Amino acid sequence: MTDTWLPTLITDTPQAGFELAITLSRRGVKYTQPDPEVLKKLRPVYAESADALIASSQVVAINFQTIAAANDYWRK
Amino acid sequence: MTDTWLPTLITDTPQAGFELAITLSRRGVKYTQPDPEVLKKLRPVYAESADALIASSQVVAINFQTIAAANDYWRK
Amino acid sequence: MTDTWLPTLITDTPQAGFELAITLSRRGVKYTQPDPEVLKKLRPVYAESADALIASSQVVAINFQTIAAANDYWRK
Amino acid sequence: MTDTWLPTLITDTPQAGFELAITLSRRGVKYTQPDPEVLKKLRPVYAESADALIASSQVVAINFQTIAAANDYWRK
Amino acid sequence: MTDTWLPTLITDTPQAGFELAITLSRRGVKYTQPDPEVLKKLRPVYAESADALIASSQVVAINFQTIAAANDYWRK
Amino acid sequence: MTDTWLPTLITDTPQAGFELAITLSRRGVKYTQPDPEVLKKLRPVYAESADALIASSQVVAINFQTIAAANDYWRK
Repeated sequence: MTDTWLPTLITDTPQAGFELAITLSRRGVKYTQPDPEVLKKLRPVYAESADALIASSQVVAINFQTIAAANDYWRK
Repeated sequence: MTDTWLPTLITDTPQAGFELAITLSRRGVKYTQPDPEVLKKLRPVYAESADALIASSQVVAINFQTIAAANDYWRK
Repeated sequence: MTDTWLPTLITDTPQAGFELAITLSRRGVKYTQPDPEVLKKLRPVYAESADALIASSQVVAINFQTIAAANDYWRK
Repeated sequence: MTDTWLPTLITDTPQAGFELAITLSRRGVKYTQPDPEVLKKLRPVYAESADALIASSQVVAINFQTIAAANDYWRK
Repeated sequence: MTDTWLPTLITDTPQAGFELAITLSRRGVKYTQPDPEVLKKLRPVYAESADALIASSQVVAINFQTIAAANDYWRK
Repeated sequence: MTDTWLPTLITDTPQAGFELAITLSRRGVKYTQPDPEVLKKLRPVYAESADALIASSQVVAINFQTIAAANDYWRK
């Protein structure tokens, strides 16, 4: 992956930061499984599993911690 | 999702912060599975599974860390 | 849930902070499954499962991180 | 549990801090399952399960983060 | 493992930091299972398991927290 | 365990810090299962399980957060 997909952790709003956290979480998956066909095949599996959805939400929460700290919690 | 659902991480009280943590946790799920019908179908599954409930509580705990830090732990 | 159950994260002692961490962990469960009858039914299941007990202890540990930081680790 | 088991997070050495992290992890279990007979019965189950041992080590790691921060990482 | 594979946590960009987080996550696996043949055999197993991919992404997220903090979030 | 195995969290390099994180993760296991015979028996089980290897890597990542912070990320 030589394209630039993460130039900065800074976002204008908390919501944009949350969406960036989702991007990071998906990229973490893609680095381990780069084949889009396999990912497409797995999607319906985890998108209908309560356990997988909660686990996904947890990865997002961890990445959001990082992004929120980077943005000083958008306090000003 | 173009609506604004997260304008700020700041809340008046710790309890409102905890409730915002729950909102973040649910949003993390919705971004992965946006179909409300599927989510509705999954709800009774995880709401009666001890493991899923504990896992959900963990995601809330992680998001609450972020929100508590953002609010400087409501110390003053 | 409109009652006030979390007015502050500040406690007098580390042990009271640990007990508050347990309260937070249980509240995280209750927000997802508010029905006390279901919770009562699930209790013997997870209270006799080693995996569920360890997972519960992990949620407590995460919440205790937040509360300990809020109290500046009760250093003075 | 009205006895005092956690008067402080401060320890003399990192190793004593690590041992306190183990105490916290076990207390997290005991608050959910206070019956010593049940705990005794569960012990051989999780002490011979690789997954449970790794999960236990993770709870210790999280509690050690808290204690290490409280002690300013024993830097001086 | 006596070769130097981690001379610094500092990277030029967030993306390079994310890639270093992936390196750390893989090294964590290699220290437990150093045999490249076994790792090669396991790869197709976890690369096609939704649960394993999400878990991998979580380890990356945790390591990225560390690296992002080390780089002061590439704020300047 | 009365021997001194953790006199300090300070290491010369990030890599030495990562290796200390592995030591901490293993010690977390040993405190729960001190019998070397049982540990030896479990090793092939988790060293050939993708899930257990990822979980191990996660514990290492959490301990590395602590050690990296203790060393101020080896920034100077």
